[in-house]
Amino acid sequence: MKVQTHLHATLPDWVSSELADVPPETSSDAERMALVHRLAARNHVEGNGGPFAALVAERGTGRIVSVGVNVVLSSGLSSMHAEVTALSLAQVAIGGWDLGAPDGPAHELVVNWRPCAMCYGAVLWSGVTRLVVAGSGPELERLTGFDEGPVREDWDAQLEARGVEVRPDVLREEALAVFADYGRTRAVVYNGRGGGARPLLGEAS
Amino acid sequence: MKVQTHLHATLPDWVSSELADVPPETSSDAERMALVHRLAARNHVEGNGGPFAALVAERGTGRIVSVGVNVVLSSGLSSMHAEVTALSLAQVAIGGWDLGAPDGPAHELVVNWRPCAMCYGAVLWSGVTRLVVAGSGPELERLTGFDEGPVREDWDAQLEARGVEVRPDVLREEALAVFADYGRTRAVVYNGRGGGARPLLGEAS
Repeated sequence: MKVQTHLHATLPDWVSSELADVPPETSSDAERMALVHRLAARNHVEGNGGPFAALVAERGTGRIVSVGVNVVLSSGLSSMHAEVTALSLAQVAIGGWDLGAPDGPAHELVVNWRPCAMCYGAVLWSGVTRLVVAGSGPELERLTGFDEGPVREDWDAQLEARGVEVRPDVLREEALAVFADYGRTRAVVYNGRGGGARPLLGEAS
Repeated sequence: MKVQTHLHATLPDWVSSELADVPPETSSDAERMALVHRLAARNHVEGNGGPFAALVAERGTGRIVSVGVNVVLSSGLSSMHAEVTALSLAQVAIGGWDLGAPDGPAHELVVNWRPCAMCYGAVLWSGVTRLVVAGSGPELERLTGFDEGPVREDWDAQLEARGVEVRPDVLREEALAVFADYGRTRAVVYNGRGGGARPLLGEAS
């Protein structure tokens, strides 16, 4: 039997253009989150995947190490959510799987909503020691139709117990504006059971 | 700012050799799980990652579509657990992110223990409609020192509620034998907080 042995994913070209004039040094959670929102807002319009983006930064210096957007549609890989893409590309950048290695700088992940059931675990295994989110709660699912999956109620306490500090609600309203814009486009929601489109919540009746 | 834009992972060469004489047609859960155990047992010895393997098969025909092993160490990417690798390579094989697409065959994932917190979500987003595991419970963590992360107590019911049938306890004792063998080698456990090795449970005192 022969099987496929190689998988890959690439950030869309427009991300590099979007970053060309952005300095890698940042000085606040809000500054980093504003960049995440800018990438998320463009990502679904460009057709790469859902309205989600993330970045990894060094905690001490604020230097951006990687960015990621949801490339499920353009990569053809269901795991390529913004968080997995950003964490993986940060690991490519530092040359190893551990963003919490004792001999390297500490890292944080900045993302435009509470991670889904998969990305929640991906955060833990990546070695980041801080998670910055624009918000959490049912608004994401209600506005976009995406399913976040069965995440534990005590998700943030579980992260804190494992050494990952959680900073909630950074530029929350701006995140909701991106999700609402996505919802208005009625784009295909691709992570539900059975593939294809499903009605956005509120449209079923 | 310039960032990394490309990530990739590859199955180790020994997997292709191991599969060379294996026919892709299979006829039972036990037959598929035996192959998973064989790959898992070799994977940690070869140094690619932990003692974990998985495969994706067509539900109707039993044909194997992809296999995966944990390649966290060899790929340098913390998300490349066996399940993510197998699911991604199956998506490469079929040419799209949805293993549950309405115009294609249904697929199942076979893996040598209950998926960790990350892979649990990855199963949901992949489109597989059946999950076959060798077992679940604290034995994995106790024997290997790996952390499965905060998975919900009702993990299987949540999957069933989303249309993923769960088949537990296929060749369970054989799975435990692989984990015990790994534990005896005292290999580096790499998914805990802070990188490097940590004591296997039971050795701390």
